[in-house]
Amino acid sequence: MNLDLMRELSVSTDSKIVLLVLDGLGGLPNADGRTELEAANAPNLDRLAAEGDLGLSRPVAAGVSPGSGPGHLALFGYDPIEYLVGRGVLSALGIGFGLGENDLAARINFATKDESGRISDRRAGRIPTEDASKLVDLLNENVKLDGVEVSIRHEKEHRAVVVFSAEGLSDALSDSDPQRTGLEPLPVEPENDAAEKSAKLANEFVAEADRILADEHPANTVLLRGFGMHPALPSFQDTYKLDAAAIATYPMYKGLARLAGMDVLKEGGPDFAGELETLKQSWDAHDFFFVHVKATDAAGEDGDAGRKSSVIEGVDALLPDLLDLGPDVLAVTGDHATPAKMLSHSWHGVPFLLHSPYTLPTAESFGERTCAGGSLGMFPGEEIMGLLMGHALKLNRYGA
Amino acid sequence: MNLDLMRELSVSTDSKIVLLVLDGLGGLPNADGRTELEAANAPNLDRLAAEGDLGLSRPVAAGVSPGSGPGHLALFGYDPIEYLVGRGVLSALGIGFGLGENDLAARINFATKDESGRISDRRAGRIPTEDASKLVDLLNENVKLDGVEVSIRHEKEHRAVVVFSAEGLSDALSDSDPQRTGLEPLPVEPENDAAEKSAKLANEFVAEADRILADEHPANTVLLRGFGMHPALPSFQDTYKLDAAAIATYPMYKGLARLAGMDVLKEGGPDFAGELETLKQSWDAHDFFFVHVKATDAAGEDGDAGRKSSVIEGVDALLPDLLDLGPDVLAVTGDHATPAKMLSHSWHGVPFLLHSPYTLPTAESFGERTCAGGSLGMFPGEEIMGLLMGHALKLNRYGA
Repeated sequence: MNLDLMRELSVSTDSKIVLLVLDGLGGLPNADGRTELEAANAPNLDRLAAEGDLGLSRPVAAGVSPGSGPGHLALFGYDPIEYLVGRGVLSALGIGFGLGENDLAARINFATKDESGRISDRRAGRIPTEDASKLVDLLNENVKLDGVEVSIRHEKEHRAVVVFSAEGLSDALSDSDPQRTGLEPLPVEPENDAAEKSAKLANEFVAEADRILADEHPANTVLLRGFGMHPALPSFQDTYKLDAAAIATYPMYKGLARLAGMDVLKEGGPDFAGELETLKQSWDAHDFFFVHVKATDAAGEDGDAGRKSSVIEGVDALLPDLLDLGPDVLAVTGDHATPAKMLSHSWHGVPFLLHSPYTLPTAESFGERTCAGGSLGMFPGEEIMGLLMGHALKLNRYGA
Repeated sequence: MNLDLMRELSVSTDSKIVLLVLDGLGGLPNADGRTELEAANAPNLDRLAAEGDLGLSRPVAAGVSPGSGPGHLALFGYDPIEYLVGRGVLSALGIGFGLGENDLAARINFATKDESGRISDRRAGRIPTEDASKLVDLLNENVKLDGVEVSIRHEKEHRAVVVFSAEGLSDALSDSDPQRTGLEPLPVEPENDAAEKSAKLANEFVAEADRILADEHPANTVLLRGFGMHPALPSFQDTYKLDAAAIATYPMYKGLARLAGMDVLKEGGPDFAGELETLKQSWDAHDFFFVHVKATDAAGEDGDAGRKSSVIEGVDALLPDLLDLGPDVLAVTGDHATPAKMLSHSWHGVPFLLHSPYTLPTAESFGERTCAGGSLGMFPGEEIMGLLMGHALKLNRYGA
């Protein structure tokens, strides 16, 4: 998607767009020959499909399974290869750590170093959450680095996140994690001159942590990896003239939406019913809503095709309430496929359904195979925003 | 489309290609559930479809409705975002004003300025065509600018076109039209240093026009907008080794074909029958024919689905005469969609039919939905020329 073109053509209007993302929606045929979506009894989705445009979207590239970051960036219209969100950033977002443009994030593993200085356990015996949490407090109280603010937040067990805040930082840094036990931790190395200050900082941080944790056991050191900075995405407001809002229950998806400049709304509850309540309450205040449902992906990762179908059926049952709000454009899709038979994210095309007054219907139901034969064909995920904008009549004509 | 690749691989042969463009061909389902093309009784097109390749082409980008300029540039194989044809250029082409590489065109609105210097009517009361025509003559006789040739031609009512001819001109200029009444006209501003000379020229032209029109009423000034220059397209001859000819009845489409270096043939009459006559007479003299039918788009813009279907039926009835000429490749498509239900150009996929001895047929009729399921799928419009060249066996193998 050409963001400059969107910026040039987009206009603010009264029409409203809802992008409903069922995380990991795409699937593959299970034992009964049907995908999770095909097996779901979803009469409302089928009716929308019979009136809508269908297609399969590809989030990143042929054969490439996207993480949640690239998957959502593509949905939001950003080239997920140009705008890479580092793992440290995703970890920070995942624990609700808002990142600014001068923030450098990295993942921390608490680890065990033996007397010879070699790493004997890269996870410090998977130290219990309550113990690790105390170590995070200890670090936050005692780490002192010149000219930079340092914040550490605990994630789970041996995992935490550190964020450095200062001008002129860079994420072009190598990991300190040697990846195997029996080796010394690696110094963090800059990949270019502009990252030298950041590398020095990261290595000083490790030295400080070693000093502070010297008498702890088993977690007497930290390993750093996945350095990342705020990707400085062109904002939704600037690019699409949209006043966009996100409704999600997991911090990472809220964080991804915030990166794109969306308002993140307080969810009404832990499930889609609660999210719908939030949508209703905020309906007049925005013209674009990103609504995220996590449970489809979780069921796919558990290999539970039946549960994934049930989640889809639960969303389907509540769709009439969403439609009662009268969205001008409603798209239902995923950020990537998570086929139950693979127990993981995959590279397969993601079912995409777009409902508006301006569609070319081709099938009677919503499923991977009806999408494959749809009027949108197979298309890059980053084109979705253009389709939504066009169908909402929010794009001026290009050229005379 | 990679023009360099075409230039490298293309060879001149005896085979003949016809690109038949039904302007605004694409449509959406109307009240009876069928698009204009699906509803048309077009047995010849259906037979060609049953023997041909089908697909949906996208002229510019997802969700983006193309103007006639970008739509045709894509058909001719040029990236419509790289090669933008300014509105002033299209206006000039639209009234048969041939543009050279040193010509800068802009649209003129005759307007009314009050005594305080503010614009009180941006269209000079939609001054009648015969009055405006006299003012154009007055300007042509009296405007004097140093080192530049200036030609003004009347379009209709308050609208005209001015073309400046000199070395070193640029179209990186802002409009003088303030867009609202009650404001003073804006000075034309250069967007970069290279456009300073052109900005100065444009402002001098406005001052000259003000002097010459001072005693006229209501048209006592001119507003300039849509500056554009010849986009300097790589020529058909150079890129494809084609001796290409255009048959069209509207000046704008002749002009677009001329930009690509095609010979523009005198049409035999105002309709497709007349164009077919011209095609027959010129058959031996060229190896590529762009034939343009306007009436489909006009019917779509009028919201008249029935008339659009009738136009398609009229073309269909004469197709046997075209086929009797024995084209090696015949493509039938549009430059964009103009769904009758939208009364305007739209972003939707454009039905594309290619008939040659080397096709993979997939359906028995020519329609948006058979094209969606066709062997070409959804593809960028600028790939059409490559398909035509390939099917005409005018491209060498790439690599050993």
